[in-house]
This record gives sequence, C-alpha cells and structure tokens, in this order.
Amino acid sequence: MEIITSGQYDLIYNAFSFAFATLAAATIFFWLGRSQVAPQYKSAMTITGLVTFIAAYHYFRIFESWGAAYDVSDGVVTTTGYAFNQAYRYVDWFLTVPLLLVELILVMGLSRSETISRALRLGILAALMIALGYPGEVAETVTARWIWGIASMIPFLWIVYELFAGLSKSIASQPEDARGLVKAARYVVVGSWAFYPVVYFAGAVGLDSAAATVIVEVGYTIADITAKAVFGVLIFMIAQRKSASYFESHKAPVEKAAVRPTA
Amino acid sequence: MEIITSGQYDLIYNAFSFAFATLAAATIFFWLGRSQVAPQYKSAMTITGLVTFIAAYHYFRIFESWGAAYDVSDGVVTTTGYAFNQAYRYVDWFLTVPLLLVELILVMGLSRSETISRALRLGILAALMIALGYPGEVAETVTARWIWGIASMIPFLWIVYELFAGLSKSIASQPEDARGLVKAARYVVVGSWAFYPVVYFAGAVGLDSAAATVIVEVGYTIADITAKAVFGVLIFMIAQRKSASYFESHKAPVEKAAVRPTA
Repeated sequence: MEIITSGQYDLIYNAFSFAFATLAAATIFFWLGRSQVAPQYKSAMTITGLVTFIAAYHYFRIFESWGAAYDVSDGVVTTTGYAFNQAYRYVDWFLTVPLLLVELILVMGLSRSETISRALRLGILAALMIALGYPGEVAETVTARWIWGIASMIPFLWIVYELFAGLSKSIASQPEDARGLVKAARYVVVGSWAFYPVVYFAGAVGLDSAAATVIVEVGYTIADITAKAVFGVLIFMIAQRKSASYFESHKAPVEKAAVRPTA
Repeated sequence: MEIITSGQYDLIYNAFSFAFATLAAATIFFWLGRSQVAPQYKSAMTITGLVTFIAAYHYFRIFESWGAAYDVSDGVVTTTGYAFNQAYRYVDWFLTVPLLLVELILVMGLSRSETISRALRLGILAALMIALGYPGEVAETVTARWIWGIASMIPFLWIVYELFAGLSKSIASQPEDARGLVKAARYVVVGSWAFYPVVYFAGAVGLDSAAATVIVEVGYTIADITAKAVFGVLIFMIAQRKSASYFESHKAPVEKAAVRPTA
C-alpha cells in the first residue's frame, strides 16, 4: 500500500469515526421511531435501522482496520504490513443495498403481491450489482477494474429503470402529502448511488495513489451516510405522514367512550 | 506537543472520564423519558438523547486518544509520539450542534412548515459555524486561529439573532407554564456556547501551552456537558409540561368506564 501523508491519514481516520457515530445514532433514531408510525410501516422502520446498524458495524471494523494498517508516530506515517481490508465495504453493501430498496418498497404500502415481487426483483439486482463490482475493486489491473465496473453498471441501470418507470404508477397512488417525499427518496437513492461509480472509477483513471485513496475512502463514506442515514430520515418522514390518518382514527379509547352515551 | 505536569494530565484525564459517564447516563435518561411525553414530543426526546449519545461516543474516543498520547510513569509525563486527536471534538460538534437546535425547535411544537424551515436554517448555520472553527483550532499560527475564529463568529451571531429575534413570537405562543423554561433553554444555548469562543481564544492569547491545554480541554468539557446534558434536561421538562393536557384528555379508559353508568 502506498504511503500517505499524516494529514491524509487523519482525514480518512476521522471520516470513518464520523461515519460510525452518524450511522449508530441513526440506527437508534429509526428503531425508536417505530413507535411513532402505524403498524403497517413498522417493518420499514425496522429495516431502515438494520441498514444503518449493519453499516455502523462495518464502519467500526473499517476504522479498526485502517488504524491497524498504518502507524503514525511524531507525524510520520509508516505501513505496518497489515493490509487495510477493503472487502468490509462490499460485505456491507451486499447486505444493505438490497435492504435499502426493500425499505423503500415497504414504506410505499403496495399490495402484498406487488411488494413481494418488487422487493425480490430489486433485491436480487442490487446484490448482483455489488457482487459484480467487487472483483474490480480488488483487481490488480486497471482494465479489470473497468470491465467489472461496467458489468456492475447493468443491474444498476436496471434498478434505476425500475425505480423511475416501474414505480411511477405506484407513486401516483401515494397520498398527496407523502408523494413529494417518496419522489425525493427515489432521487436520494439514485443520486447517492451515482456517486459510487464515480468514486470507483476514480481508482481507475491514473490519479496518484495517495490522492486516489483519499477520494475513494472519503467519497464512499459520504455516499454511505447519504444513501443510508439521510435516505432513512426520508423513509421515516414518509411513514409518519402516511400514519397520520391511522392515528387520527385510532385516538385513545377515552374519546370514543365519551361519545357513546349520546348515541 | 508540550509536556504537562502529572497533575495537569490527571485533571484532564478525569474530566474526560466524567464527561463520558455524564453523557452516557443522560442518554438513557432522555430515551427512557420518551414514554413520559405526548407523541408529538417523542422525536424531540429521541434527538436530545442522540446528541448526548454522539457526545458520549466522542468522549470515549477522546479519553482513549488522551491516554495514548502520554505516558505517565513514576509521576513523570512523557509524550508517546501519538498525537492527541483534537478533531474528535469538531466531528462531534458538527453532528451535535445542529441537532441541539433541532431539538429546541421540535419541542416548541411549531407548524410543520415553520419547523422544517427553522430547523434547516439553524442546522446549516450551526454546521457552518463548526466547519469554520476547525481550521483555526489546528492552525500553526495564532493569527490563523484569530481569523478562523472570527469567521466562525458570523454564523454564531446569526444563530443568536435567530433565537432571540426570530423565535420571540413563537415563544409568546407557548403555554404559560412552559414559556419560562423555553426562554431558559435559549439562554442555556447562548450562555454555554459563548463559553466555546472564550476557550478557543484562550489558545490564542499567549498563555504558556500547558496551562492553555488545561483551560481548553477542561473548558470544552464543561461547556459540552452544559450545552448537551443540562440543556437536554430543560427540553425534557418543557416536553413534560406541554404533555400534561394530552395525558389529561387521554386518561385510562377505567375512569371513563366508572362514569358511564351515570349517563
């Protein structure tokens, strides 16, 4: 692994710690938020929190692996001989990216058969996208990075097509209050995901390797926080707005009881 | 890093441990308190606990980093060559200071559009304030510390203006028994925050560096506990007082049942 400056080391180190704190905090926020949504959206909130939980775990491991790969003493960075484990990211994405799409489908409250078929199709495409990207990430040659990267773009573009063409009718049937947020959530998915290939190919365009390392690690970190925590806040807001009518019609038994005698 | 005495080392070491314990305990208090407030204030309590959770995490890291930076043996302090990571504080503030303002806005129970616009504006100003302070904190020269510090004061003063001029009308519309507490919370924000620039500039007025380190580390610690844990207790008290009428009208069905026969 190429040697980086202590400023570059610190930037990446602090970005990993920042990601861990943000994702762990987001997890608690989503799980506590389960009590603030109607029963049919509780699974969406559970999964939203699972995504950030899994990511927080992996950022903890990534942080530890980064610390173990380098020694910084008196401002001088040396490698320890232990490799930084890039695979943690792919293991994370392999789990979290399909779940991310499932949480979006669940919060839309589609019919049971549509929920299952869309969640399965999007989940499998997402897993395939990650599985195809990994060989390129660890490839020795730039050519291999390009080939696997482009192969991985096929399921990615299919997912984008599904989200924009496939889901349009379902989005039109969302309550007016929530429609704008569902559309925004879709853009956060595609926008933050579009960032991953940019970062991925930054490792293939011949930047000097220390600068490429900073772009790849900090770039993936920002994309992960956006795609998981920021996206999750949108899912929570959608679930809350769609729950308003449920809570309106399930007010405390008191008020019902008080009305009864006059009937 | 300049050498400090073992008494100075211990004071800072114990202050960090104290902050971790206080913030971790406050986190549990706020999250358990969610069940004691009306549904519309649950998010405020969740976020109040997130702020202390994120801060507790960072004090844990700060504590570890402090321990790794020095070796104290037979009462003699030597540096180990591993730098104390001052950036943890800024990463923490970057997350917690916007959230602190969001919890104050949420507990006020404003309209949805006013909540979103005020939370966004205050959150962005707070993030900007922290981002401008950091380059000065790690600057090599006193001049740079002053320049970044002063730049950071601009969003700070804007936030103070928003809290005092912008929120006045909203505070007047708070229920009477919560109004005093909301005003107090606003003073705790501004009062504890005013402490940060004092500590920050203590590093710029030419104190000898061991004394400056003690003032900066212990000072920031006291300010963090006040701005996060003490402030959070006020938020909880406000939420509880504002929830009284909700619980009054949602009393247990039992009491209503007892009334029914007379109808």
